[in-house]
Amino acid sequence: MPSNKGSNQSIYLDHASTTPLDGEVLAAMRPYFCEEFGNASSQHAYGMRAANAVVAARDEMAVALGISPHELYFTSCGTESDNLGIKGISLAAAERGKHIVVSAVEHPAVIQSALDLKEFGFEVTFVYPDENGVVSPQTVQNCMRADTVLVAVMSANNETGVIQPVKEICAAVHAMGAYLWCDCVQTAGVLPVSEFPADGFAISAHKFYGPKGVGAACIKRGVRFRRQLAGGQQERGMRGGTLNTPGIAGMACALSLSLKCAAHDNEYVASLRNAFESIILSSVPDVFINGGAAQRLPSHSNISFCGCDAQNLVFALDMRGVACSAGAACSSGASKPSHVLQAMNVSEQRLKSAVRFSFGKNNTVRQVECAAEAVIAAVKAIRG
Amino acid sequence: MPSNKGSNQSIYLDHASTTPLDGEVLAAMRPYFCEEFGNASSQHAYGMRAANAVVAARDEMAVALGISPHELYFTSCGTESDNLGIKGISLAAAERGKHIVVSAVEHPAVIQSALDLKEFGFEVTFVYPDENGVVSPQTVQNCMRADTVLVAVMSANNETGVIQPVKEICAAVHAMGAYLWCDCVQTAGVLPVSEFPADGFAISAHKFYGPKGVGAACIKRGVRFRRQLAGGQQERGMRGGTLNTPGIAGMACALSLSLKCAAHDNEYVASLRNAFESIILSSVPDVFINGGAAQRLPSHSNISFCGCDAQNLVFALDMRGVACSAGAACSSGASKPSHVLQAMNVSEQRLKSAVRFSFGKNNTVRQVECAAEAVIAAVKAIRG
Repeated sequence: MPSNKGSNQSIYLDHASTTPLDGEVLAAMRPYFCEEFGNASSQHAYGMRAANAVVAARDEMAVALGISPHELYFTSCGTESDNLGIKGISLAAAERGKHIVVSAVEHPAVIQSALDLKEFGFEVTFVYPDENGVVSPQTVQNCMRADTVLVAVMSANNETGVIQPVKEICAAVHAMGAYLWCDCVQTAGVLPVSEFPADGFAISAHKFYGPKGVGAACIKRGVRFRRQLAGGQQERGMRGGTLNTPGIAGMACALSLSLKCAAHDNEYVASLRNAFESIILSSVPDVFINGGAAQRLPSHSNISFCGCDAQNLVFALDMRGVACSAGAACSSGASKPSHVLQAMNVSEQRLKSAVRFSFGKNNTVRQVECAAEAVIAAVKAIRG
Repeated sequence: MPSNKGSNQSIYLDHASTTPLDGEVLAAMRPYFCEEFGNASSQHAYGMRAANAVVAARDEMAVALGISPHELYFTSCGTESDNLGIKGISLAAAERGKHIVVSAVEHPAVIQSALDLKEFGFEVTFVYPDENGVVSPQTVQNCMRADTVLVAVMSANNETGVIQPVKEICAAVHAMGAYLWCDCVQTAGVLPVSEFPADGFAISAHKFYGPKGVGAACIKRGVRFRRQLAGGQQERGMRGGTLNTPGIAGMACALSLSLKCAAHDNEYVASLRNAFESIILSSVPDVFINGGAAQRLPSHSNISFCGCDAQNLVFALDMRGVACSAGAACSSGASKPSHVLQAMNVSEQRLKSAVRFSFGKNNTVRQVECAAEAVIAAVKAIRG
């Protein structure tokens, strides 16, 4: 078990897992907790003011995402959005075919949603990336069949940060008459999601300095899908449940803020990540940057420290005041080797020793230098 | 469309729809937004502190609900909890039978979840209440069959506040070897849910002065169920998605606060409701209190003003600074007559003119008197 010795002052290098709520975002949420607390479905002044806040947030997000407000469905998280998109679209298209293609490096929300479709008679084919973690459009097309109704390929991987050629994959998928679902949980607020031609995508607010407990599924006009949460008439009958007004207002604010500062923040975060990797590569022997040869998000660094057990290294770094991750948080504790790195066919040694560092806009150059020093010392201690 | 003329100072009599967040609850959530923002699944200091907060909230709620912490599953709302319980338990029990019984006065989250099971080959039988809205254990038993696996009867109705004899219904259901699912969204924080012998129940934080966007499903030990949101290993693999730490901390705080003050608050709220009904009954002819002859929650008052269109009356009251509801918020806008009152077999006149007033701990005697005056005047104006 990790200790709690790492204090508030620990250096946080796990932004791919979650980010701190931006103070400006909390301020945007603030009125909807105690004062403007109405139920957005209520037909009185309190309800209308809440509904207006939701409409404003929906419009703001639609502009940011390059979609129509009617293509946006508010959910509770990225996982729910992926469930809604993958199960919802596939089930609605079941008459046309019961085959879906899913990249082997997807988030568990996507992979498990796909596997859940088996009980409805669907077949699932996994498409594998190359050794850099990149899924090629040609490989996707090779996996498709006449009865393929949906393909799921994420815009960037949560463990390695490797960016997929979504535009080209989408063309290949559309050429075969299927839909593309794109998990954009790691990229929303970082890359211009509005340029993605996917038929639907998932985002999660807490990945871009927004609140936990709120996300969205974008499902393009004309793409039929089945609701997953049955209930009231919220979200045009496609997602029951009282709208989380403060969360929705916060998500819209966080997305706008992130995109406004993306050019600057991306460059800054990449400079931190690159500096970190430079120090590690020049100071620690037998290290490999997984996905390092591919185009990556500015924030992610997935490094194998051969001879170290990743879990031990993460614990040792926690003791030294550096917060990072062995695999994705959602799978942590399971201590299973990363399915992402396995799909990339990395060696057993690299698989067992891979640690993810993910940088954020609040990190400083000094923090990165300290973290690198801690890594160098911890690896040395573990390797003995 | 309702106007926004009703200002912040409108008298809020729609607590069954949602409640304002308690200031103390917001304070309990506050640390987990910007400072202790870690992902509760992460294995470093930030993650562990978030996980500790979740454990503390789970323990606190388990005590309040009279269950084991392992019987609690955090969700995003009451609707999700109902979906998880009804679909999850029924699907896991499908080998034993594919028949479920649902009371006709349930929330749409329950009714629609039940209907969604039809595509899995389930049959749904609706059990009807008496004219007071009460579902009798005998009627439930009469609807059950050898292949009935689940019965759903709510603890109290959201439109009328009518309390169901859950204990007796549960005995009848168990005698037939089925499970009872109990939607406790209206009662959690008001009645001692811990005394409910149901096999599972749903609660929603924003109904008891907690935050929107968080709820819980309680599913008792030994009751098998299928997860509905596929993803990571959160909630023992039964509900994927990053845990909403601030929401969970807030829900636990709100539940404890509500229960601590329940005796006092219930008496106070009932006195407001009773005073309101007394004034209306003595001043307005041709009014009926729907469910008034049954045992009701202290907060709810569902009144038919014969000759008035409910929607018009709600709008007129909004203009006069009183926020109330025609039917439940989740169905509002649809302008369909209440399925709850229909199931109680009320006359067409009463059905079309029913308005729900639901009182809360922050309402004052003066507000209730003003609201009653506004109702009297509005009804007079509409009736002409």
